Amino acid sequence: MGYKVCSESTYKALLNEYSNYVDMNLNIDIRRGRPATEQLNLSGAMLKVKSSDFIAKGTNADIRNYGLPKGLPEARQLFADLLGYSVDNVMIGGNSSLNLMYDIVANSMLRGVLGGDRWLDSAKIKFLCPAPGYDRHFKICQDLGIEMITVKMNADGPDMDTIEELVSTDPDIKGMWCVPQYSNPTGITFSDEVVTRMANLKPCCNNFRIFWDNSYCIHHLYPNDQDHVMDIVAACKEAGNPHMVYTFMSTSKVTFAGSGVAVVAASPENIDFLAKQFDTETIGFDKINQKMHVDFLKDPENILKHMERHAKIMRPKFNVVLKALKSGIRSAKVASWSNPKGGYFISVDVMPGCAAKVVDMAAKAGVFFTNAGSTFPYGKDPLDSNIRIAPTAVSVKDLALAMKVFCVCANIAAYEKCAK
Amino acid sequence: MGYKVCSESTYKALLNEYSNYVDMNLNIDIRRGRPATEQLNLSGAMLKVKSSDFIAKGTNADIRNYGLPKGLPEARQLFADLLGYSVDNVMIGGNSSLNLMYDIVANSMLRGVLGGDRWLDSAKIKFLCPAPGYDRHFKICQDLGIEMITVKMNADGPDMDTIEELVSTDPDIKGMWCVPQYSNPTGITFSDEVVTRMANLKPCCNNFRIFWDNSYCIHHLYPNDQDHVMDIVAACKEAGNPHMVYTFMSTSKVTFAGSGVAVVAASPENIDFLAKQFDTETIGFDKINQKMHVDFLKDPENILKHMERHAKIMRPKFNVVLKALKSGIRSAKVASWSNPKGGYFISVDVMPGCAAKVVDMAAKAGVFFTNAGSTFPYGKDPLDSNIRIAPTAVSVKDLALAMKVFCVCANIAAYEKCAK
Repeated sequence: MGYKVCSESTYKALLNEYSNYVDMNLNIDIRRGRPATEQLNLSGAMLKVKSSDFIAKGTNADIRNYGLPKGLPEARQLFADLLGYSVDNVMIGGNSSLNLMYDIVANSMLRGVLGGDRWLDSAKIKFLCPAPGYDRHFKICQDLGIEMITVKMNADGPDMDTIEELVSTDPDIKGMWCVPQYSNPTGITFSDEVVTRMANLKPCCNNFRIFWDNSYCIHHLYPNDQDHVMDIVAACKEAGNPHMVYTFMSTSKVTFAGSGVAVVAASPENIDFLAKQFDTETIGFDKINQKMHVDFLKDPENILKHMERHAKIMRPKFNVVLKALKSGIRSAKVASWSNPKGGYFISVDVMPGCAAKVVDMAAKAGVFFTNAGSTFPYGKDPLDSNIRIAPTAVSVKDLALAMKVFCVCANIAAYEKCAK
Repeated sequence: MGYKVCSESTYKALLNEYSNYVDMNLNIDIRRGRPATEQLNLSGAMLKVKSSDFIAKGTNADIRNYGLPKGLPEARQLFADLLGYSVDNVMIGGNSSLNLMYDIVANSMLRGVLGGDRWLDSAKIKFLCPAPGYDRHFKICQDLGIEMITVKMNADGPDMDTIEELVSTDPDIKGMWCVPQYSNPTGITFSDEVVTRMANLKPCCNNFRIFWDNSYCIHHLYPNDQDHVMDIVAACKEAGNPHMVYTFMSTSKVTFAGSGVAVVAASPENIDFLAKQFDTETIGFDKINQKMHVDFLKDPENILKHMERHAKIMRPKFNVVLKALKSGIRSAKVASWSNPKGGYFISVDVMPGCAAKVVDMAAKAGVFFTNAGSTFPYGKDPLDSNIRIAPTAVSVKDLALAMKVFCVCANIAAYEKCAK
């Protein structure tokens, strides 16, 4: 080519200049469109976090800027300590653990799981759904076109005989929902035997995952009578299934329901894998909210004290419900109910065939319960019996009135059912 | 059935009691496991938002609790006012507009769009990708298995002849990425003609969507020389394609890069549809962060003043880059570059075949530019020419040094290319 950018002597000077730059050991990163610190300072008045604390622990990263896809190091440490994990087992997300679950399900369908195929490469995708269970888990499956298989929920967890059989024989089963402690809605906690059997499952496909939604892991009602669930991450590792489980919790019912932080704990390899998938999906989670949580929650001991203050507010409400049921339900055939040691719900089984009617009658009287059926896949309770009571949000006075209405409706519905 | 819950007279008393409850016009909601106000108060110390302001405008909803899936009403109003829309055109998301885009793409694949089929029901899914463009848009497609079709980016927007032809003939084309104002990376703004032609596209499938990433809509560098892009939502409505476009912005480069709020504006029907899809995916977006933004940003006028303060910090940096290129690049054949009036980038086209080498040489000297090729689909610039410079994050001094290195590398690479 004839064209020359410059003379050969200029070229040699350029090479020399370049070599001087190399010798300077520079480290200047102008890869991404990140605002400068001075720009971040412009919005300082918005925040409560002390401005001296904007650098993430052990890093040079400004928590107000992009970066740190696995979350703020000090937040990862705090929740690792709380849950008994190493930092590399833990990733901190946004304000919704449900959102983490949904995204992981959707990404598993579209992009696959660590060491396993895309779920969409199966002819069908099925989930095991212990029920009664959490309606929002089931809604994720329903809206994503995942077939739900109902599994019976017992007093010590889901029926493991059924699960072992299905997981080892049906390669379309890609996942399972669990709320292992103070289960939504029945309030039971999985026994060590159930957890151990679950960790030792032998899935016949390479991309089966347990979604272990441990929402109520620190949500005890009574200081001296607490359930604790076995560590499924450790159990899976020991069973040779280290990557089979994702566990979740959040501070939605610790700090603010709409503005908490969500946590996923799993094998370090799974955490790396998830962080990489999420890196395509988001510019990172809100680290200022994570920082506010660390500053406020401080350490595991303080978190547990904080949870006792929640329990103190919640206990009278649970007691009002239980008392109302005991005095208002006219016979054991009209209804039976749970007596949970933690979590957010009391689960009532009214006379079979009566749940929808009870909820409907109560609604006509201005008292609104979760839709009958919603604790089962596809919103269909085969017995039309289960009703979930969520006592926390209203006052003790309103709750007492609501439960009077409930009992009257349950009694009437049962009477009319028997009269038929 | 022989069993009776109670005597007939008791039953009549129950009916009477029930009827009294109905007459009381109660309204007690114990559907969901929401914490009580007293429980939310437990974490009050975490926040800067005035505790008297916890009720969302025009509602009974506590902003700290679940609810309000389209976002805080006052935040919707603020961004509607800023962007010239009605409140019902606007939904406020979490901290990442990229996350909204990703989720909408994934949900369109798995669950469909308003009035249109699931994208996955097509044999193939393709996106039009004007390039040079935003690497993170392209990464979403790549990781979700969406085929990318590169479209030439001109000085007034993408090549509309190509787009009109492809969209009207290929039913597998489901979407298109656009950064219409101060485009990433070329800095150009779409002309009214381009916007009008885009709004008047005649897609041959029922589920084509434009992803209008208006990230830099208020990110002007010069108070008296600003670009403005035509309103695509209005244009689509007028063209009879009211639901064909989603527009996005965020405050990532207004307040905090990692902790801003994201906004999607579209037809009211699309907003309803999206809110319903997101309701399965999340418990709602962080309304406390939305509230902090409303309190801090106040009104559109104040936001624009705030943006001028950003511009004041950014202008010297853009000027340093432009000055360095002007003085350091030895001929027009070595490189040409953009001179944007806003946004976050300066786009440089070095001599074809030299971009990867320049970035590599600079990296060896400790100066890091966005990977060559990353502004094109699949990370492959067919000319190996485009390099994106992101000047904002570093100091003017470092930037000046970085640009000296850049120019030396560009000159050397061009010289060596010509010498071959």
